[in-house]
Parts: sequence; C-alpha cells; structure tokens
Amino acid sequence: MPFRPFEDQNCSIARALGIVGERWSLLVLREVTLGHRRFAEIKRNTGAASNILSDRLKTLVEHGVLDHDGAQEYTLTEKGRAAAPILSALMTWGDRYGWEHDPDHAGPPRITVHRDCGHDAHPRLHCRHCGEPLARDSTYSRPGPGANQEQRAQGPLPT
Amino acid sequence: MPFRPFEDQNCSIARALGIVGERWSLLVLREVTLGHRRFAEIKRNTGAASNILSDRLKTLVEHGVLDHDGAQEYTLTEKGRAAAPILSALMTWGDRYGWEHDPDHAGPPRITVHRDCGHDAHPRLHCRHCGEPLARDSTYSRPGPGANQEQRAQGPLPT
Repeated sequence: MPFRPFEDQNCSIARALGIVGERWSLLVLREVTLGHRRFAEIKRNTGAASNILSDRLKTLVEHGVLDHDGAQEYTLTEKGRAAAPILSALMTWGDRYGWEHDPDHAGPPRITVHRDCGHDAHPRLHCRHCGEPLARDSTYSRPGPGANQEQRAQGPLPT
Repeated sequence: MPFRPFEDQNCSIARALGIVGERWSLLVLREVTLGHRRFAEIKRNTGAASNILSDRLKTLVEHGVLDHDGAQEYTLTEKGRAAAPILSALMTWGDRYGWEHDPDHAGPPRITVHRDCGHDAHPRLHCRHCGEPLARDSTYSRPGPGANQEQRAQGPLPT
C-alpha cells in the first residue's frame, strides 16, 4: 500500500497518522520502546513480513521517529519517545476492550507502573491548566490559530 | 488489505490496533466524534474511497465501536467513546511533530478546551494512584495476570 500522508487534511490527528499511524508502524514503535532494537527481533515479535517491516522502518527513520545506527540497531529519537502516550492510550483501550471475545483471557499481559510512587499507574488524561482529570464530555475543541476558513466557521465541536 | 486482528500477539496494544488501528478507521472515529455521522460527510472529510470507507465502517460496527441506526447515521457506542484518549494522544503528538515540513503552518487547527475550568486543556497523562503527571521515563511495564511464560520471564520492561 503506498504511503499516504493525509496532508490534504488540515488536522493534527491526520498528520500524526500519516507518520506513525500505520498499524505495523505502531507495533514497531512498541518493540523499540520495549528495548527490542534489531530487525530480527522486531520481525519476530510483530510478525511483519520482511518487506513490510523494512518499509515501515525506513519511513520511521525518514520522519525522524527512529534513529538507525551503524550497529543496525533502531532507537527512539525525541520525536519517537514523544509518541509514548499514543501507545499508552492504545494499551489502556485494548486492556478494556481488546479481549471481549477471548474466554481464556486472564487480564492484562502487561501493566504500567509509576516508578515514582511505586503503584500501578492506570494512566489517564488530566487538564494541564487545572490539573483535574478530564472526564467524559468535559472537553470540546475550538478552532486554533491554524484553522482554515471552514474550521473557523464550524466553531466549537465535541471531542 | 485483509483485516488482520493481530490475535497471535499477547498484547493489548496489538488488540486495540486490530480493532481501531487501521488509519482510515481512526479518521472515521475522529469524524463521528466531531458529530459528522453520515456516510457522505465522513467520506468527504476523510477522503476515503467508498469501498474502503464501507469496509472500515462495517468493521467498526461489527466490533461494537459504532452503532448504525435506521436513519443511516453512525454514532459512537460506549466502546467508541472510550477511544477518545487515543485520538487525543494522536492530536497532541501531531500538533507538535506533524507539521515540521510545512512552512505555512500557523499553529494547531483545533485546540482542546476543558469545559470545567474554561482553559485550554493540553491533556497529559497522570498516575491514577498518586495523581502526579507521568514524566518521561517515570513508568515501566511489569508482567500482568495475562502474561504468558515468555513475558513473565522478561520481567519489567521500559515504556
């Protein structure tokens, strides 16, 4: 499938998906985050075919999400590290909804622990201004400085 | 591309990606979240071809992420609403890293506002136990109750 950057959409979600949003790419980011840095390890753990994996790794390096050093190890750049909340959100949703049809499911395969307090983190989104958790329906979206004419006319929308 | 549920991987990220992780699917969720509920609107705003869009909508309905009522409008189920943090994380990352090669970029097209406090939310992840923001490298992942033998042997891993 050819790479489709979604650059025709004036939307940061689409922009993010154009870089890291292909499903294999997110699995690759998971692997490198977990410390699996070599092609063979990533291939084994994701189950990706070699040509697909090569393509996704190349795209992630080209976009500055991964570095590829001489030792043939892939590492996260700052930009790649900053994608951690995307993986966290997917994991939280998957823990809750990803196993509904699996009668043998015994619970989450992995649990995120907060090193500083020593407890399971169960990460959730808070407002950076007031610090409160963002409850369902407690946010909306307003047009920002980069909104186009149509988006400005739409005004506030649900999130 | 055939639907690939990643069920061979004992991982909640993979499970989530198997349901909502296809890029068009996440754009569809964005649209329905914003209140665009009809096929024609979703098609226009995502730029998806009709056959791809039909397929993704069908998959999302089959997995209980969307409802499809008699008036031919698609709405979010509880399971679909719960995916909002995935879109939020993509938007936050895209705001920061999605426009690097766009000299005309004037800022985020849309900004998330916290209704309760009235300020821009800039959502970030906090620990549900202690309430503190989850700083870079302040978490790790431990094997959970659903870990397989290999995952138990791996022990703690970076996040």
